[in-house]
Amino acid sequence: MSAASDFALYGYFRSSAAFRVRIALNLKGLAADLRFVHLLKEGGQQHADAYKAVNPQELIPTLVHDGQAIGQSLAIIEYLDEVVPEPALLPPDPAARARVRQIALAIACDIHPLNNLRVLRYLHHTLGADDTDRADWQQHWISTGFAALETMLAQDAQTGRFCHGDAPGLADVCLIPQMANARRIDMDLLPYPILRRIEEAAYGLPAFTAARPENQPDAE
Amino acid sequence: MSAASDFALYGYFRSSAAFRVRIALNLKGLAADLRFVHLLKEGGQQHADAYKAVNPQELIPTLVHDGQAIGQSLAIIEYLDEVVPEPALLPPDPAARARVRQIALAIACDIHPLNNLRVLRYLHHTLGADDTDRADWQQHWISTGFAALETMLAQDAQTGRFCHGDAPGLADVCLIPQMANARRIDMDLLPYPILRRIEEAAYGLPAFTAARPENQPDAE
Repeated sequence: MSAASDFALYGYFRSSAAFRVRIALNLKGLAADLRFVHLLKEGGQQHADAYKAVNPQELIPTLVHDGQAIGQSLAIIEYLDEVVPEPALLPPDPAARARVRQIALAIACDIHPLNNLRVLRYLHHTLGADDTDRADWQQHWISTGFAALETMLAQDAQTGRFCHGDAPGLADVCLIPQMANARRIDMDLLPYPILRRIEEAAYGLPAFTAARPENQPDAE
Repeated sequence: MSAASDFALYGYFRSSAAFRVRIALNLKGLAADLRFVHLLKEGGQQHADAYKAVNPQELIPTLVHDGQAIGQSLAIIEYLDEVVPEPALLPPDPAARARVRQIALAIACDIHPLNNLRVLRYLHHTLGADDTDRADWQQHWISTGFAALETMLAQDAQTGRFCHGDAPGLADVCLIPQMANARRIDMDLLPYPILRRIEEAAYGLPAFTAARPENQPDAE
């Protein structure tokens, strides 16, 4: 294996999936060579041949390490946790790992992909959804997901300062970017006091703050 | 830990996420106590209080083991692979694990949730999408995803009889139910020869065949 600093990350400042990977790298103290893929310029640089060769899904992020290009933010973060085990982003016990993955996947499968740029575009261009329709759509899926997460966190004594215990992990790495997306569309987050408390704890850590979209070199 | 046979699975014959878990249990030779959650009857049994207490997302499947309820099919399957390691559904090497997880997540995040019952209902009831609109929507996201998967599998020598090598694993566990969904809406699968070849290999195994929707006790 190459040096741990040999990472390259294809991303975009506003992508919440890239935001997850930036947090994970920061938590592990890993530097990455950042490669910017502008999702709006030139018809979307993610659709350029050079990027398709790296990621046939034409989605970001992609991590390159040891000559392998890895797409899908959760696959990337599990990989990072396996090749650079400390600090761990998943707990050691299988039941606890399942709980953390369940929270992460509830965001990564059931909230985020529904509100992705390509989906919002399809709603607009193909189904004629206007700005209000699309805002309602986003709020619907985020609030449905956040309500379930708030309940899951409230009813489990393993919830601590973060989603699982008192150290940040995979679940928080997914939650904080999703909350940033919710704030960007001015959602009311008052119904989710545990999520807000965890968000506040996260932004007390440089790993989360430095990963924010507005703190990236390609931010506009 | 309890005996390995101490599993209960909440599912629905037609759910492709439950289909994934059924395959994983079968591959590991594990029996589970099946609990049927009818997604259409009584306004959707997944919304009943009794089930919400098990899974606050009101989605299936949920696996119960050792008193813990685990939602999210990929969290369930990773858990099964950790508590019952043989036969392994993920390879041992981190780079290979990342490849398998990338394929699984490309389906579980970027194809399946867009075509879920609750999303198709929203398109119909809130956005006024008719049957043709919804069929086009489903085909669009499946064909976009399958085209990327076909490319990923074609360009990597690690693709074998199955998505990764010659034994079935997590990627195949996600792929086969998604192909069943595609066939259910009569999609043209000719453009995906590798996917079709893997599907044929999978259905040569009783673990996949026994897990099919039409072979479930709650099938209609």
